Amino acid sequence: MPHLVLLYTPNLESRADLTALCRDLADTLLAQRDEHDKAVFPLGGTRVLAYPAAHFAVADGKPPAGKDYAFIYLNLRMGPGRSDAVKLRTGEALKAVLHRHLDPCIQRELLGVTLQIDDHAPAYDAKISSLHPYFNPPTA
Amino acid sequence: MPHLVLLYTPNLESRADLTALCRDLADTLLAQRDEHDKAVFPLGGTRVLAYPAAHFAVADGKPPAGKDYAFIYLNLRMGPGRSDAVKLRTGEALKAVLHRHLDPCIQRELLGVTLQIDDHAPAYDAKISSLHPYFNPPTA
Amino acid sequence: MPHLVLLYTPNLESRADLTALCRDLADTLLAQRDEHDKAVFPLGGTRVLAYPAAHFAVADGKPPAGKDYAFIYLNLRMGPGRSDAVKLRTGEALKAVLHRHLDPCIQRELLGVTLQIDDHAPAYDAKISSLHPYFNPPTA
Repeated sequence: MPHLVLLYTPNLESRADLTALCRDLADTLLAQRDEHDKAVFPLGGTRVLAYPAAHFAVADGKPPAGKDYAFIYLNLRMGPGRSDAVKLRTGEALKAVLHRHLDPCIQRELLGVTLQIDDHAPAYDAKISSLHPYFNPPTA
Repeated sequence: MPHLVLLYTPNLESRADLTALCRDLADTLLAQRDEHDKAVFPLGGTRVLAYPAAHFAVADGKPPAGKDYAFIYLNLRMGPGRSDAVKLRTGEALKAVLHRHLDPCIQRELLGVTLQIDDHAPAYDAKISSLHPYFNPPTA
Repeated sequence: MPHLVLLYTPNLESRADLTALCRDLADTLLAQRDEHDKAVFPLGGTRVLAYPAAHFAVADGKPPAGKDYAFIYLNLRMGPGRSDAVKLRTGEALKAVLHRHLDPCIQRELLGVTLQIDDHAPAYDAKISSLHPYFNPPTA
């Protein structure tokens, strides 16, 4: 964790650089610092995955001539226990990235963006990884 | 919100019109009224996204000759605070749409359908949208 | 339910047999027994769905020469009410499957695997199925 998933209408594919957006969102997560100036999220556990839908329906399905409706939903799941301030700052930082990447599209087209953070505790949680040891090699 | 996601086995693709199903589900969400006869869901925030899996396994993986197993899971996430009656009515209305679209397939084939509604509060929630202003232009 | 979803970076596609992994995970769910030696999960309700992302970003996006980062996230959603022991055993059994399928890849490459189980109660829950009756035909 953290784990950020983007679900979007496929008509966004040609209007935004989704790979660049994923990268920027990941970098923004990695830049977050807590009250003690420690990184909020582990380098080896930060990932962003984006999925265009195969089928979709948005709003009334009747956009004005020459336009269509687009949507992108972002869900960040993080482990529980972080402070409200950290969650708020993380959300606002991700929102700023979304503005930077999508504002031109939002102004020109009919696009909705929703970002949510969930931090409920799972009933079971396991990790297997060569990424964590790669970024945090055991000290001698 | 509301945000309805369909996850399904790709063998459903040729057996049901998933785009039409998405449209009907969205229209059904938009038709919901609360106790004060107000729309339960905002027009500009209603979207349905459907995703066929690239790989899957269902039940014992040993369907009888000439058949295979299919599954569709629907998850509706809505904001918290709606009444139990609204949630129940919304669920039942979506279920009726599923019956209408999928009953022939359910009777002919081996298909499972599960619909769930979640309404837990996110730890952070942000919206950026040109859809909401399009449907609710500011009054002079 | 249970409902197991795999979200992964598409670079895993050539390194692991995801269809075989889905099958093994489903078989492992079906093999779980509770304190009374009863099957934990219904045969007709067990499904595993796997989705490669279209776009992604992992960690710092700067893997060493000749490598790249890969990730797979597994989320098992099950109905509430099972014992902690059942949830733990189920998680550990799935984790063993992940080790069996992915350890060679984890050792050779930079791959992160996260498995979580959620069992919160939905606000609404409906099933329509010809799978359940197929596996549990009504007795005369």
